[in-house]
Amino acid sequence: MNDLTGYAVGFIGLGLMGRPMALNLHCAGATVTVHNRSRAPVEALAAKGLRTADSAGTAAAAGDFVILMLTDTPAVDAVLEGPDGVLAGLRPGALVIDMGSTSPLATREFAARVAEAGGEWLDAPVSGGVVGAEAATLSIMAGGSIEALERARPLLERLGARLTHVGPSGCGQIAKTVNQMIVGLTIGAVAEALALAGRAGADPARVRAALVGGFADSRILELHGLRMIDGDFTAGGRVSTQHKDLLQALELAGAVGLELPATELNRRLYAECIAAGDGGLDHSALYRHYTRTATTGGEG
Amino acid sequence: MNDLTGYAVGFIGLGLMGRPMALNLHCAGATVTVHNRSRAPVEALAAKGLRTADSAGTAAAAGDFVILMLTDTPAVDAVLEGPDGVLAGLRPGALVIDMGSTSPLATREFAARVAEAGGEWLDAPVSGGVVGAEAATLSIMAGGSIEALERARPLLERLGARLTHVGPSGCGQIAKTVNQMIVGLTIGAVAEALALAGRAGADPARVRAALVGGFADSRILELHGLRMIDGDFTAGGRVSTQHKDLLQALELAGAVGLELPATELNRRLYAECIAAGDGGLDHSALYRHYTRTATTGGEG
Repeated sequence: MNDLTGYAVGFIGLGLMGRPMALNLHCAGATVTVHNRSRAPVEALAAKGLRTADSAGTAAAAGDFVILMLTDTPAVDAVLEGPDGVLAGLRPGALVIDMGSTSPLATREFAARVAEAGGEWLDAPVSGGVVGAEAATLSIMAGGSIEALERARPLLERLGARLTHVGPSGCGQIAKTVNQMIVGLTIGAVAEALALAGRAGADPARVRAALVGGFADSRILELHGLRMIDGDFTAGGRVSTQHKDLLQALELAGAVGLELPATELNRRLYAECIAAGDGGLDHSALYRHYTRTATTGGEG
Repeated sequence: MNDLTGYAVGFIGLGLMGRPMALNLHCAGATVTVHNRSRAPVEALAAKGLRTADSAGTAAAAGDFVILMLTDTPAVDAVLEGPDGVLAGLRPGALVIDMGSTSPLATREFAARVAEAGGEWLDAPVSGGVVGAEAATLSIMAGGSIEALERARPLLERLGARLTHVGPSGCGQIAKTVNQMIVGLTIGAVAEALALAGRAGADPARVRAALVGGFADSRILELHGLRMIDGDFTAGGRVSTQHKDLLQALELAGAVGLELPATELNRRLYAECIAAGDGGLDHSALYRHYTRTATTGGEG
């Protein structure tokens, strides 16, 4: 494992994911300067010895690497621009690494803007959630030049367990978009299947057990299938986030002229869950759509 | 592993799956009497030392176990009934094991008819395909009494690697129906996702590689995702069979008053593949739906 002594990193965005990631880099020896819109997480990390910055620009100016871990595409746009923004503060040749889930189309634009400002861009979104961020076992999907990836590798290997170079700028975000589509639609498949099993008179838990290990098996069947059976919808990935992710996939599809009927259908189902008040639950709560719409009792 | 010497089995239905299964039982020491509508597979197995019967009834009369491995629900109905049928030939107390994929609702009726005729019923459909049938690594999902399952266990353990008791009669077929739904819908999710990745300008092979091992991972992404990327649609499970399986799921759902919008959508997509002439290809050929409907060229 690399010692990151001598690495200077500006880290912007200290949400549930960003906090443990910034801390992991600090613990590996990097000099990490953090910034966040709200102050509480900044102070919490300051207490652990990380440096702090009052603006995105100051955080950026403190590092040869600038990591962004923000909520959405408008947030990335917001921290890049303006007199206090990343572009204004950017060191010559600095590498900006966007590890949040950002629109692939906007990403190409951001990469161009960073290049104009004299920096380099890598999109490196992650899969694995808060647990993966804490344990540094994230899967990282990278888009950018091979040189940028190799330059970032020592940092990324302290944050994740799997690092794949997907292609040029934007391709990391395309992979992430597609990842969220498969997750969302597979949850939809498992929900519909287990709901049918239960309604037809079988025990969904035993049906799931019969399917694990066969062709129908998936991480989703194992993990989210269990949540459906247990009725435990404590948020991992939220219904509302899943809905946003599918919308983003549909926007990308629209821009490249592709129809995605299954994605559109599932987006509508997740929207119905939000309308029913389940937006804050784990996305496996899509299962409740099928118990809610029950029109007759179970048979058998 | 059990030696099946002393076990007498009537085996009806010698398709791609039934042939290696009957042979596996024979090689394990069972006395297997086979019957099939067409004669060629019967003669092929006779040459390997299996006994043969001219009718389903004669095959049934030759065993304390009668295994059915037939194409569909009407075929099961057909071999059970009539003067030459299984019910007419059934030994008192014989156990009829239906290992094909049969409608769960019809299964409950078949189980009742076999009970009236003095026999017992176990539905024990399988997952794993011809490869699993040959290697005796099938996943078996059983519906029936625990006593029937234990009685059949020595035979079933020579045919498969995983055996799960799902519940009473019909529950094995419910699990199989649900298995096919998840397989069909996950193929749909992977097809739509890889199509979007490619159209948006990323290499689907590298996107798939980035996703394997993460939350979007599944047997389908690994196996059928690769077939999509390679464009190799040599039939494992056929598009036409997948369509039939989803129709069967929708019939069951209709009977118990449940709407399955994602299953209905995917059924329609597979139907469009059949209409486009791809019914005989592997179900991963659903991917071609998205390349066929391309309205603009790739970008990026």
